[in-house]
Amino acid sequence: MNTALPGYEDVLAAAGRIRAHAHRTPVLTSRTLDEELGAQVFFKCENLQRMGAFKFRGAFNALSRFDADQRRAGVATFSSGNHAQAIALSARILGMPATIVMPDDAPAAKVAATRGYGGNVVLYDRYKDDREQIGRELAREHGLTLVPPYDHADVIAGQGTAAQELIEEVGALDHLFVPLGGGGLLAGTALAARALAPQCKVYGVEPEAGNDGQQSLRSGAIVHIATPRTIADGAQTQHLGNLTFPIIRAHVDDILTASDAELVACMRFAAERMKLVFEPTGCLGFAAARARREQVRGARVGVIVSGGNVDLARLCELLSR
Amino acid sequence: MNTALPGYEDVLAAAGRIRAHAHRTPVLTSRTLDEELGAQVFFKCENLQRMGAFKFRGAFNALSRFDADQRRAGVATFSSGNHAQAIALSARILGMPATIVMPDDAPAAKVAATRGYGGNVVLYDRYKDDREQIGRELAREHGLTLVPPYDHADVIAGQGTAAQELIEEVGALDHLFVPLGGGGLLAGTALAARALAPQCKVYGVEPEAGNDGQQSLRSGAIVHIATPRTIADGAQTQHLGNLTFPIIRAHVDDILTASDAELVACMRFAAERMKLVFEPTGCLGFAAARARREQVRGARVGVIVSGGNVDLARLCELLSR
Repeated sequence: MNTALPGYEDVLAAAGRIRAHAHRTPVLTSRTLDEELGAQVFFKCENLQRMGAFKFRGAFNALSRFDADQRRAGVATFSSGNHAQAIALSARILGMPATIVMPDDAPAAKVAATRGYGGNVVLYDRYKDDREQIGRELAREHGLTLVPPYDHADVIAGQGTAAQELIEEVGALDHLFVPLGGGGLLAGTALAARALAPQCKVYGVEPEAGNDGQQSLRSGAIVHIATPRTIADGAQTQHLGNLTFPIIRAHVDDILTASDAELVACMRFAAERMKLVFEPTGCLGFAAARARREQVRGARVGVIVSGGNVDLARLCELLSR
Repeated sequence: MNTALPGYEDVLAAAGRIRAHAHRTPVLTSRTLDEELGAQVFFKCENLQRMGAFKFRGAFNALSRFDADQRRAGVATFSSGNHAQAIALSARILGMPATIVMPDDAPAAKVAATRGYGGNVVLYDRYKDDREQIGRELAREHGLTLVPPYDHADVIAGQGTAAQELIEEVGALDHLFVPLGGGGLLAGTALAARALAPQCKVYGVEPEAGNDGQQSLRSGAIVHIATPRTIADGAQTQHLGNLTFPIIRAHVDDILTASDAELVACMRFAAERMKLVFEPTGCLGFAAARARREQVRGARVGVIVSGGNVDLARLCELLSR
């Protein structure tokens, strides 16, 4: 695995690789929100990306760089969420086998969706087994190439293409709010923003219940936490990565948090006023921007909506709270 | 009121008038749906239009043609739905008073939204009073200009701009499926399609429970029906208009129907797979296209999604069926 840190030139190269396969997602706005905040807010809608999340960008970029031998043997990963589907779909498009290690209590819909894209799902017990170890062993045994969810140069570079498209489309921004789990999206976004809008302040936003990123940025070393209890299931990571952390440390202005109640309020706003389905994790950036009215007044604000993969029954349950 | 039939040149003029105020809504696609149908489907997402529906186009176009005296006195209309909000919002933008006649059992949210845009709401008893008569009397008494929901040349021309944008963006289409209530959207769409894609077949789609348009097209005269019982509340009209019918008769290939169950299935698909909120009426075109797999196979298919204004509690209730 390549352990060199990616740069903006890698984001540009990724953009070329994914162009024919990823959606160039729309940038949407809400006059109601702009009036509420006295700001101009631009939503980069990765909920409208293929398979419903930005993860397709990084996964496809990584897999498209495999050589002939790697393609023949296939890819392995561990993920219970959007990265699993992103790898399975990218592997199908590129005609290679994909092995996905998922917890045996993962939502049936997510397992089914991953299998639907042709992924070979290997279940494990999240209370007994170590998914990274299982992934690594499977990879070694069968000669598979492991593409982890965020700590991978090509994944980070691919995720950066969302912010690159956003800034290309709307011009320079004053603030950019980005959901933060393991840091792939945030690191990629920071690379793009630094190159295209050097004055833009970039913020990662994680769930209030699990602010390991905030702690890491403040302490200067990667902090590990227990799996946080939050509805933002895409940001239940326990620590930043060895590649994502140094990029975040170098290029991100601050790490903020949002509460579950704020995320639900944003999901409601999205569905009611914008006619869009955002998943809880997808609302992290939105919630943080909305809570900082004083700070963003008069500014041009980018918000990356990372995804829209929420079960409808779950969506309705959250909205009825 | 101008009773001459509008033509494509009026759609073009409307496009110029609304450009600075209406959203150019995105055209979205779903590979899952394309695989299901073996076709290429392009959704013109008017659920992402200002106030959540295409109605803003026609209302703003009509009001922007008022002369100074008309603006001073203001506009009147009768509508329980999206047209009410469209008139109220357009009037606010253009700085004129708006009087909206709404039934006293209209959803509180719709009355509140109309008032929120600054509309002066006059309630009536839908079982005793005649809304058109009340509207006309108010208009006469106070010198207001009446802009009805669909049977108005400027409204029809404005609604045609959605199809014009769609075809401009994606090129010629083989089929175009359009929700049908009173016919403003369908008539405007037909004008645009005939000019920009003469070979394109244009279909109006109404609720199975109220096929007055279908009966009218087949009999050659406007058929009146009782208010149909359907979840498509935007298409509970009882008859086509004196302006919309002749345009539809001249330029529309057929009128189809969709059942409430088909509409719910499309709302579910939109929310689950496309991460979009469609209102029941907004799904009429989608449902008809989806039910005609044989007919659309291999074709380029346009679907106009007319709006996304559905109460979230109602959305969740429908999706739990």
